[in-house]
Amino acid sequence: MFGKLGAELIGTFWLVLGGCGSAVLAAHFPEVGIGLLGVALAFGLTVVTMAFAIAPISGCHLNPAVSFGLCIGGRFPVRELIPYVIAQVIGGVLAGAALYVIASGVDGFDPANGFAANGYGEHSPGGFSLPSVFFCEVLMTAMFLFIIMGATDSSAPAGFAPLAIGLALTLIHLISIPVSNTSVNPARSLGVALFAGPWALQQLWLFWIAPLAGGAIGALTYRLIRGRAAKESVDAPPAASTPLGD
Amino acid sequence: MFGKLGAELIGTFWLVLGGCGSAVLAAHFPEVGIGLLGVALAFGLTVVTMAFAIAPISGCHLNPAVSFGLCIGGRFPVRELIPYVIAQVIGGVLAGAALYVIASGVDGFDPANGFAANGYGEHSPGGFSLPSVFFCEVLMTAMFLFIIMGATDSSAPAGFAPLAIGLALTLIHLISIPVSNTSVNPARSLGVALFAGPWALQQLWLFWIAPLAGGAIGALTYRLIRGRAAKESVDAPPAASTPLGD
Amino acid sequence: MFGKLGAELIGTFWLVLGGCGSAVLAAHFPEVGIGLLGVALAFGLTVVTMAFAIAPISGCHLNPAVSFGLCIGGRFPVRELIPYVIAQVIGGVLAGAALYVIASGVDGFDPANGFAANGYGEHSPGGFSLPSVFFCEVLMTAMFLFIIMGATDSSAPAGFAPLAIGLALTLIHLISIPVSNTSVNPARSLGVALFAGPWALQQLWLFWIAPLAGGAIGALTYRLIRGRAAKESVDAPPAASTPLGD
Amino acid sequence: MFGKLGAELIGTFWLVLGGCGSAVLAAHFPEVGIGLLGVALAFGLTVVTMAFAIAPISGCHLNPAVSFGLCIGGRFPVRELIPYVIAQVIGGVLAGAALYVIASGVDGFDPANGFAANGYGEHSPGGFSLPSVFFCEVLMTAMFLFIIMGATDSSAPAGFAPLAIGLALTLIHLISIPVSNTSVNPARSLGVALFAGPWALQQLWLFWIAPLAGGAIGALTYRLIRGRAAKESVDAPPAASTPLGD
Repeated sequence: MFGKLGAELIGTFWLVLGGCGSAVLAAHFPEVGIGLLGVALAFGLTVVTMAFAIAPISGCHLNPAVSFGLCIGGRFPVRELIPYVIAQVIGGVLAGAALYVIASGVDGFDPANGFAANGYGEHSPGGFSLPSVFFCEVLMTAMFLFIIMGATDSSAPAGFAPLAIGLALTLIHLISIPVSNTSVNPARSLGVALFAGPWALQQLWLFWIAPLAGGAIGALTYRLIRGRAAKESVDAPPAASTPLGD
Repeated sequence: MFGKLGAELIGTFWLVLGGCGSAVLAAHFPEVGIGLLGVALAFGLTVVTMAFAIAPISGCHLNPAVSFGLCIGGRFPVRELIPYVIAQVIGGVLAGAALYVIASGVDGFDPANGFAANGYGEHSPGGFSLPSVFFCEVLMTAMFLFIIMGATDSSAPAGFAPLAIGLALTLIHLISIPVSNTSVNPARSLGVALFAGPWALQQLWLFWIAPLAGGAIGALTYRLIRGRAAKESVDAPPAASTPLGD
Repeated sequence: MFGKLGAELIGTFWLVLGGCGSAVLAAHFPEVGIGLLGVALAFGLTVVTMAFAIAPISGCHLNPAVSFGLCIGGRFPVRELIPYVIAQVIGGVLAGAALYVIASGVDGFDPANGFAANGYGEHSPGGFSLPSVFFCEVLMTAMFLFIIMGATDSSAPAGFAPLAIGLALTLIHLISIPVSNTSVNPARSLGVALFAGPWALQQLWLFWIAPLAGGAIGALTYRLIRGRAAKESVDAPPAASTPLGD
Repeated sequence: MFGKLGAELIGTFWLVLGGCGSAVLAAHFPEVGIGLLGVALAFGLTVVTMAFAIAPISGCHLNPAVSFGLCIGGRFPVRELIPYVIAQVIGGVLAGAALYVIASGVDGFDPANGFAANGYGEHSPGGFSLPSVFFCEVLMTAMFLFIIMGATDSSAPAGFAPLAIGLALTLIHLISIPVSNTSVNPARSLGVALFAGPWALQQLWLFWIAPLAGGAIGALTYRLIRGRAAKESVDAPPAASTPLGD
């Protein structure tokens, strides 16, 4: 599995380097900084670009919650789950280290200022409480997996899944960076928490449990609805009623 | 119809949660907020992502004005209209509730500050008058349905309709958020009006009537032009004159 | 030709309403305005969305410089040029009127503040001189037609032309709004100049001559390079050397 | 090779004119400037638009580091490398000159203010040190070539490579403009360094060596992983386990 796992490692490296790197290096640049909109775009584009590059090799999960959700959804074999998660975590940590090297090349750098780590309560960017952050992470990851399951279904138009999934990650960041700095990805949270200070590691549990739970919920919900729709279309003759479904 | 209606419910939930959520949570974030551009992008991406995920199941209308316009345009059976609208409204209201739960997790939250509701007059973001708002909503929804009819026509390139339609919704928001906070979608307006205060419910009538009227106008206009063009191409031998139409 | 011309009229209406509308209504909105980036995106998305909707009907030129350039480039019959330009101009003027109606629904509206008209010298947004504006408009329109010719060539991947061409228009605006408010489209310039005051009409000549000249230059340049490349590939056996050209 | 080289020249002209032009003319425009996000988008869109237009002619490299990396990766014949690089450099310098002509049409223009040149130390936009800039440029170009190799692989979905590669360039700029003003392209660096003052030429060596080294590393890494994955899929029966890889 060296090929697949190498692809997942490099892909997750890119997700954390690109997403968290844009946040640390460019979001707050004086006057012309890219802001949360730029960071949201960067996270999404890491997935868009890597999915076009490595999806034929490894499926381009780049995220333990995605691999786990796809297991629950019946799309990914359980025996590959742990190796995938290990490769993703290594990629995320290497990205945190690479970003640390680059960011430390300027005077006054202090990773304790955040380093794009995820947090709740006083470490939430907008001061959101633990329950609010937990609910938000579950909900966002559930929607993420719902979209991933649908966009990679055999009925979806071929070739567009990288755009659909990457832009879903952009959208999730547009909504929820102020709430939790947006995780929906335990490997992304771990990769920078190691460098951001003790608080980030203390709060890390939430950004493993909530995304994994949300991923399972989203995948199951898609299976339920897809299964019912498939049964209905067998029971009834197909009507050419859906403009995008033709 | 449980499968189709479940897809519409979840899709409309995503549209309202993502679009209004980005507006409530992230648009005004200090210094690095996503602004109206980010909100416009978020609304569009809810449609892009859901259309790739569920269009094969339900057509991914997510909007009573779209379902109604497609009926008028001959693309959607009338018998499914009411169930679709009900599912869309339930999805929109659930999204308003979920957003309320998340947003209330920070001190000082007050939904009466707007909660992304649509309005005219003193409740228009830019102070636009009722006639101006009404005209704008009719016009924007008409153009939206015109594009939806064209992008899902059998002559359009396959697979691109989710991008065309989602980006049309982004464009509509880029133009008209200052005018009406942009509805073009009665379910979106209702979903947050319930939480924004009495004024939002008092003004809600406009954001049902104008989008529905606009949707019908846009669909009929497309049918008229498409029909004439089809007749002309039968009357005359086809000339290879159109660069994008080959 | 009613079908084709109706499509061009509505499409150009959308280009001017969407592009200039976002500039007039949303660009300068306090604190959260979409800025020049949002306006650039809006102009591009008018073309993306309309091209997916009406390219099979009319080719979706929406611009006299495009129709003229495509004539020069051998892609559009000369006999249809004048009717197309007339439909485009009518669409642009109707969009200026519709935008005037919406924009006048707020107190303090004064179209003499600009109304998104194109200008040079003291009416250039950044104060650029007439020669600079003229050169910029020629160059931008030339590159626009070069890309249109290439993206609609039979060798280009099918279905992507609307994205390529619309995003080219976004890019052109990202570069040149400060120089000339960006025309590259005589119908767009005329459509709002009627409402912006006498200076806009006095300067309008430049925004017809420069785009038309640029369009011709770009189309001819593409023909020259494409022709030479085609001849070379006949003279020599094809080498699988081009990563994107396979 | 006139056709191919002409396409590379014009394409690189567009990359430098569009990317650096947006930075010089529009990034800092008062109140509504496009900022680093707009510049990142502009650089990416130059590649998206040109790749759809000229990839069938020349492969649309537009960058000596891309041509060199593709040689190393076995995708581009060595005998065409020097002619391609010369055409790219000429295109970049012509773009610098054209941008100079336009930008000098406003009072107070001074190219010594930067002219979008790349730099390290005191000439890094954010004051990043030489080692930090060197590492960042190597890393970004390596990831760029990794994505290019993957997105143009025969296993990738057809037609999407221009989007994947152009959006990768946008992402790279979202991360690294504050570090080095982002090169990853020696022709882009040279094209504007000629006009930006002596310091830009003195620092130019880094923006040739680092991108070329990074390009080679990225292409070799992709070959390694792709080769191993291909071998594994021969050794083992294919499992339908990858959602995006189907």
